[in-house]
Amino acid sequence: MLSADLIAREALALIDAEGTAAFSLPRLADRLGVRTASLYNHLDGRAAVVEGVRRLVVEEMDVSAFAVLPWPDALAAWARSYRAAFARHPHAIDLLATTTISSPATLAMYEAVVAALARGGWPRERLVAVLTSVESFLLGSALDLVAPPLMIDPAGHAPRVPVLAAALRAAHDGDKAARADQAFEAGLDALIRGLVAQSEELRGGGSG
Amino acid sequence: MLSADLIAREALALIDAEGTAAFSLPRLADRLGVRTASLYNHLDGRAAVVEGVRRLVVEEMDVSAFAVLPWPDALAAWARSYRAAFARHPHAIDLLATTTISSPATLAMYEAVVAALARGGWPRERLVAVLTSVESFLLGSALDLVAPPLMIDPAGHAPRVPVLAAALRAAHDGDKAARADQAFEAGLDALIRGLVAQSEELRGGGSG
Repeated sequence: MLSADLIAREALALIDAEGTAAFSLPRLADRLGVRTASLYNHLDGRAAVVEGVRRLVVEEMDVSAFAVLPWPDALAAWARSYRAAFARHPHAIDLLATTTISSPATLAMYEAVVAALARGGWPRERLVAVLTSVESFLLGSALDLVAPPLMIDPAGHAPRVPVLAAALRAAHDGDKAARADQAFEAGLDALIRGLVAQSEELRGGGSG
Repeated sequence: MLSADLIAREALALIDAEGTAAFSLPRLADRLGVRTASLYNHLDGRAAVVEGVRRLVVEEMDVSAFAVLPWPDALAAWARSYRAAFARHPHAIDLLATTTISSPATLAMYEAVVAALARGGWPRERLVAVLTSVESFLLGSALDLVAPPLMIDPAGHAPRVPVLAAALRAAHDGDKAARADQAFEAGLDALIRGLVAQSEELRGGGSG
């Protein structure tokens, strides 16, 4: 029985298997064994399918830490679950990063994040900037997961880029996953430390 | 007269005008008024064109600050020019973020960054993680520039997400560019502050 949820799941499966470029309503209808027009009985066009896909990815992200941990720790926990969700659906990144968010489930996730930041003392006019900058780092880190195993390949040019070549050899040589994890954890730690410092400054040098 | 440089410039113009999905060697040949096979007289296939496109975008990024400023300030200057370059070529982001980097000009840019970090005291085995984490933030921030004017639209759901709705109203309501700039500068400041703190810790609490 066709439903908006089933259509979204099939759309995500299609994107996972073949990438965003392959995602179209006719392709989706074909996979579901229905005519394209039938999809419109269940949802309101392409944007609604994208929102359905977003809901499925967002359901894999965990905001529960915001209810129990201080915001810097909760932000780190959410960030790890966010990256892990996109690691499972890497082709969804550019689709979801560039379409307007309007589904209740996704809005609820952002509400959990900004409400925790507000309780932690961040002024209202800074909340969107903090959320956006953390999400920029997360989306970029997710893109790194889709990158080739050796993203930078000095090859024959190594003698002209000696520090880079040595740095690449020293950074978990040959193990892309470990290198990506190290970069993500280091960047997340730096970003959150910096946010804590900004927050303390805004509160007049208090303990944050 | 066809050349690798001209082909790269036409490829970038095609991507700028129509997006990555429109980029193919036959389309490119068509714009240049030659047969696809003729392209191969000037370069070695699609990957070579992508590297040519990357070189053009990288030429718009400025590493000169690394020669004259302390690494945290130089990193901020480079980051701003990096984001500005992708702001002019937003459709190139996902293409360049997910293909292997091997062109001398791009390698030279990364060499300038990691060599400055090394001079600033970062140990060799941390250089790639610092570079990657900063670049993840930059790529994600560049994606934010391609996002719709109102990325999060609570619309009818506002009563259920009160903090988010108020935060969106407070954050340069209606002015997407100002909101994106504020988020980028706040995130960049936080990330670099955090990196400075990490660097000082690695050096045993010195002045960085």
